[in-house]
Amino acid sequence: MQYTSFQPRPRTLLGPGPADVHPRILAAMARPTIGHLDPLFIALMDEIKDLLRYAFRTENRLTMPVSGPGSVGMETCFVNLVEPGDKVVVCINGVFGTRMKENVERIGATAVVVADPWGRAVDPNKLEDALRAHPDAKVVAFVHAETSTGARSDAKTLVEIAHRHDCITIVDAVTALGGCELQVDAWDIDAVYAGSQKCLSCTPGLAPISLNERALERIRSRQARVQSWFMDLNLVMGYWDGSQRRSYHHTAPINALYGLHEALLMLREEGIEQAWARHHRHHLALRAGLEALGLALIVPEGERLPQLNLVSIPEGIDDATVRARLLAEYDLELGAGLGDLAGKVWRIGLMGYSSRPENLMLCLGALGTVLRDLGHGGDIDGALVAAHRQVFG
Amino acid sequence: MQYTSFQPRPRTLLGPGPADVHPRILAAMARPTIGHLDPLFIALMDEIKDLLRYAFRTENRLTMPVSGPGSVGMETCFVNLVEPGDKVVVCINGVFGTRMKENVERIGATAVVVADPWGRAVDPNKLEDALRAHPDAKVVAFVHAETSTGARSDAKTLVEIAHRHDCITIVDAVTALGGCELQVDAWDIDAVYAGSQKCLSCTPGLAPISLNERALERIRSRQARVQSWFMDLNLVMGYWDGSQRRSYHHTAPINALYGLHEALLMLREEGIEQAWARHHRHHLALRAGLEALGLALIVPEGERLPQLNLVSIPEGIDDATVRARLLAEYDLELGAGLGDLAGKVWRIGLMGYSSRPENLMLCLGALGTVLRDLGHGGDIDGALVAAHRQVFG
Repeated sequence: MQYTSFQPRPRTLLGPGPADVHPRILAAMARPTIGHLDPLFIALMDEIKDLLRYAFRTENRLTMPVSGPGSVGMETCFVNLVEPGDKVVVCINGVFGTRMKENVERIGATAVVVADPWGRAVDPNKLEDALRAHPDAKVVAFVHAETSTGARSDAKTLVEIAHRHDCITIVDAVTALGGCELQVDAWDIDAVYAGSQKCLSCTPGLAPISLNERALERIRSRQARVQSWFMDLNLVMGYWDGSQRRSYHHTAPINALYGLHEALLMLREEGIEQAWARHHRHHLALRAGLEALGLALIVPEGERLPQLNLVSIPEGIDDATVRARLLAEYDLELGAGLGDLAGKVWRIGLMGYSSRPENLMLCLGALGTVLRDLGHGGDIDGALVAAHRQVFG
Repeated sequence: MQYTSFQPRPRTLLGPGPADVHPRILAAMARPTIGHLDPLFIALMDEIKDLLRYAFRTENRLTMPVSGPGSVGMETCFVNLVEPGDKVVVCINGVFGTRMKENVERIGATAVVVADPWGRAVDPNKLEDALRAHPDAKVVAFVHAETSTGARSDAKTLVEIAHRHDCITIVDAVTALGGCELQVDAWDIDAVYAGSQKCLSCTPGLAPISLNERALERIRSRQARVQSWFMDLNLVMGYWDGSQRRSYHHTAPINALYGLHEALLMLREEGIEQAWARHHRHHLALRAGLEALGLALIVPEGERLPQLNLVSIPEGIDDATVRARLLAEYDLELGAGLGDLAGKVWRIGLMGYSSRPENLMLCLGALGTVLRDLGHGGDIDGALVAAHRQVFG
């Protein structure tokens, strides 16, 4: 066993996340570890909660990062808000809706599926129909920004429909947060979870969540105990809630939280609307470039996420060959397709700190060149010029 | 909201964890983030598994870090190895045994408690009695090194008893791993979990686990689905197990794993027996110093952990005052008592990188001085001399 310190090659991460992490955030994570009950750390926790409220556009008191990846954020929302025997309408238009259904079933609740094609937004009419057919449903769950397909659903409308049928809402905003408009309070979302490693450009491992009073009331009126000790928000809040004496629950991932604080601070410095606009601007530039390369986005205009672009792999081109060459020759990572889309698409993310003009240019130039080598036509010069013009006018 | 980058004061962490993190580990965590399916990262995962096998003294194939704090390691073991309706013997001699019981009950299983006083080891005779009284028990769970009391139980003997009664064993080694002898294979422990932030001196947020073939067989023969999606080892292994194509489960906490790799590498460089010996040597020195200060350890000799020392707070001395002064005047963190021991003890950890002669000296000098100011007698000079002699001869 002759191992040595790990020295990763610096990559450019243009997949579905993790995105490139800003040097300020990496530097923050390397600061000295202090105790998780240190007064200095408790003050940092309060700042993180405030900054998360800014990012989520909410005043929700229960706004905090769960100490685990986005999947733990998801499971935390489900195990607290769903009880055995409940009926939950789950909208599925990709991998993460499917995972929501898994969560519901493992609680011993029933999932009513509203299915839409992968690559399309959730159809509000189908949700309406499902709720009419299942008046005893208590919860509606959907993914705002489907990481597996690049489709954006109309969260505001879906929440309105759910509320009209007396359901509370659980919204997956893992890929949404920081990359496109998300208004937790204005849209009246009841429970939302996200991840640290996408448009916040922090490292993976933390899942910001936010729950409103309606969601908290549902937790308070539960009959069954939450099945997970670690994710039981009644316990977690004893540590994260500033109103009471902090009680020990688990040891928080101190240095990861330093990173999240710095990432949120940078988002605040840029301004959340400005961050949304930046993601949108670079999306338009990428689209212009991809068109010149003869590559098509699979999601219809109007349902596309700016931060995550799914491109059809041209006929006769092997997925793995292209991604391996991009990684080996350009240190550039694009994402592979997931589930039904495996081998058929690339997922090109321009998220957070990755969403920069130079990365656009690298992506179009490198992808165009590798595809040309493999016999695919495409106007590389035109792609670069079109993207550049779109960004700089 | 006028927040700025967080600049923690460098503290000396002599509580129950997190311990001081070595600069090499902090530096590793600040390296550029790469993708969680990058071949370079997959290779790193394999090294981490190997290095964990070294630390755990095991050949278990299923040896890996869970992407969450130690509590998630605990819950992962319980939800995979215990089914609803099972009977589990839980040995409780502190906070973490109590938490094990909570885990058992939230699964819908029955906990049979073997209770021992806080500050004492688990009594093997009581375990034997409980297993005789409950021949239908399937699992025995206990804490090897109780973080709340500083007591070490005889893991080898407890596992032998459990096996004699056809039970598999779940062992909490959160505070044990790296700080005192732990032999997963030689003692035939079936499932063990630990934490990254104690004697490994990494930052908090990861929970190394290891399961043997007997434990895996129990998972394979489950009737009920694992209640947690995130912790279902059948799914997690699809990502962490090298034998198959890695399938996406969740996004691993990349930079935290850089840190764990470096921490394990340093343990390997030092040698695990040497690390155990270092913790023992500094424990003896601390003990000598504390005696000179007139402070008593609450755990009887022979049941004491070297890496975590519980000291009775002298009559008339206020717990919080002393810890606040140590923090404010010396940047020194000692741990408070938990549960029944709150206000009655300090927990002095000499774990991992914190277990150094200079920290011993700081602790004895600072604690002695603050206590003297508060009217408690004690031979500070004698404490320093005794500790120094114990370390350097």
